[in-house]
Amino acid sequence: MTAVADDAQAPYEAAAGLAGVSVARTHVSDVLGRKGFYHYRGYNAVDIARRGRVEDAWHLMLRGELPTVSQREEFAGQTAALRQLPDGVADLLPAIAGLSPPGSLESLRTAVSVTAQEMGCKPWTDQSADETAAQAARLTAVMPTLAAQLFRLASGKAVVQPRADLGYSANYLYMLTGAEPDEPSRYAVERYLILTIDHGFNNSTFTARVIASSGADLGAVLSGAIGALSGPFHGGAPARVFDMLDAIGTPANAEPWLRHTIEHGDKLMGFGHRIYKTLDPRSELLHEVARELHSERVEFSELVEKTAVELLAELKPGRELYANVEFYAGVVLEAAGLPREMFSATFACSRVIGWMANVLEQIGDNRIFRPLAHYDGPEAPREFPGFWQPGNP
Amino acid sequence: MTAVADDAQAPYEAAAGLAGVSVARTHVSDVLGRKGFYHYRGYNAVDIARRGRVEDAWHLMLRGELPTVSQREEFAGQTAALRQLPDGVADLLPAIAGLSPPGSLESLRTAVSVTAQEMGCKPWTDQSADETAAQAARLTAVMPTLAAQLFRLASGKAVVQPRADLGYSANYLYMLTGAEPDEPSRYAVERYLILTIDHGFNNSTFTARVIASSGADLGAVLSGAIGALSGPFHGGAPARVFDMLDAIGTPANAEPWLRHTIEHGDKLMGFGHRIYKTLDPRSELLHEVARELHSERVEFSELVEKTAVELLAELKPGRELYANVEFYAGVVLEAAGLPREMFSATFACSRVIGWMANVLEQIGDNRIFRPLAHYDGPEAPREFPGFWQPGNP
Repeated sequence: MTAVADDAQAPYEAAAGLAGVSVARTHVSDVLGRKGFYHYRGYNAVDIARRGRVEDAWHLMLRGELPTVSQREEFAGQTAALRQLPDGVADLLPAIAGLSPPGSLESLRTAVSVTAQEMGCKPWTDQSADETAAQAARLTAVMPTLAAQLFRLASGKAVVQPRADLGYSANYLYMLTGAEPDEPSRYAVERYLILTIDHGFNNSTFTARVIASSGADLGAVLSGAIGALSGPFHGGAPARVFDMLDAIGTPANAEPWLRHTIEHGDKLMGFGHRIYKTLDPRSELLHEVARELHSERVEFSELVEKTAVELLAELKPGRELYANVEFYAGVVLEAAGLPREMFSATFACSRVIGWMANVLEQIGDNRIFRPLAHYDGPEAPREFPGFWQPGNP
Repeated sequence: MTAVADDAQAPYEAAAGLAGVSVARTHVSDVLGRKGFYHYRGYNAVDIARRGRVEDAWHLMLRGELPTVSQREEFAGQTAALRQLPDGVADLLPAIAGLSPPGSLESLRTAVSVTAQEMGCKPWTDQSADETAAQAARLTAVMPTLAAQLFRLASGKAVVQPRADLGYSANYLYMLTGAEPDEPSRYAVERYLILTIDHGFNNSTFTARVIASSGADLGAVLSGAIGALSGPFHGGAPARVFDMLDAIGTPANAEPWLRHTIEHGDKLMGFGHRIYKTLDPRSELLHEVARELHSERVEFSELVEKTAVELLAELKPGRELYANVEFYAGVVLEAAGLPREMFSATFACSRVIGWMANVLEQIGDNRIFRPLAHYDGPEAPREFPGFWQPGNP
């Protein structure tokens, strides 16, 4: 009845969603959920965020090591030079921006697909490893440009061209707003971006690896990964934390609103994570960053978090639900001047660095992802209805 | 050193590519590799191809059962009415068609992404199950239109609008060539399309499920699946069998050419499959179809297949390498009047039916795919270089 009995060796029946299944060996990153610790190639990601620049983390992920002082300057210069859109993409961008609301990952997915076509990305099997690595760097550098220009076009504003004299974060904020960011905003967004570059085999990173394993080009990989990121169970819902804060409205309403929501079995946005059963280290640093920015929303957010954690411990004992990365991410990004619609696209601008590191690792020692499934439908072969006649009428 | 030791329960370490791992339960299809048999919801797929129409198989996959006589007519009419492109897509199509060569899955990926945006596809979490199912049907119906129109535009020809009075296969050939196909060609392509609708958790189907599991919209799912299909290890290489036949050139050259290739460790295009260790049942029927079409290439292909199988048995004993679906697919499609560049896109036009059936099943009982990886890079936490100072300079 099933493929199971048919194969020489019985398949391993994985849990739903591949929970608890290790699908590859990796040197890129790791998440130690019970310790509340994650790292990029061995370096504590939270410390990189505190100490470094996006370009440092990017160099580490792409080249395998943190840069030296001179490598840092060289890499920053090289990647800044890659920020301009390829010819032809700019012509199509207004039409693409008009297809979905400002900040949508749907438009970013289409724009990245077009960009890779313009760049002439081929299946990685049909080009050299150096060509693929160069395309990975360029697609990463271009992502913030696409995100910012799509947002401005969809909002009816003129695009702002990238500047090569600004760092990754400052340039991103500049392209979005048209003005150089102040230092606290730049520093806040820089830490957010570094914190969210990679996080194990999350859904979009896994998608990128699965697509790359077929030999497909980086445009296929990236548009697929952005598509996965757009799902509300993954990166598509950071603004929803804000919708919750808006719905709560006042400090006095926090306890009754949250209690009602939890008791009715509704999910709280921004709490809980499959891997972390402790405070999410990303949330911890972003909470710190939020405090620095003196946002008026911070105090309220803190009250909501504290109340929610207490209520979750009371009403869902043993579930170990804490604030996750989404909870303070929105507070930080808003305080740094980012429009709420851009939270998901901003996430894509950092996560692309992790995607590319994972994909380059995947294709360096590749086997196509081609799992099995356990068929448990009607027993085969079924008889055809009587009126069916041979001959494909 | 690894996440393994950190978790309460040690992860299962899967083989590369998830070989031999069952990642879900399914009612959609199954492949019994050692029996050389595969089925759609219990019905022998080869028999459906011999006896039915694409619409019958599509109804089975989408609705769960083969249609009755009256359901068949109704379903054919309903889906034929969905073939027109949404407003706005036609305007963008010439620009998209210009980005890559005729028949490229890269342009199809971009066009599908745009079409889903125009249709207003939302994350399936944010719309009703009925809306998602309706979008799945429409995207499936539109795929041949996109593929055919992109091909004609990229080839400098005027587009041919779909006709609702023709069946799925006849209409597809009509839109491609501008003429109604003769009956042998229609029947040949119909069987090819039915045979290739689904085939277990192949790479693109798995990609579709992984992306859908994040809650993403069907545009994200479909553009990701097309991206996966474009990889040469998956659907991106059917024309390469022809390149091989061209390289061999003459019957006399078959034996020496193939022997040289196998002895030098190069892969023969169109032979071997991870699941089938016997003759691929798809290849078997397509061989039959090829014979019916009296293509001049058939005899030569048969000689090459026979010689290759004998040489593989001699030089790679025990590997059980036979002609796979790609081998006769190209011969059939060419003889039916399809340009070689369109083989991969034609595959997408049938496989989309399988993708959608799998995705609707996935979201009916969803858990996000979020596996683990086994970190075996430098031991964490590593110390930062001495020149690194706190403060994110």
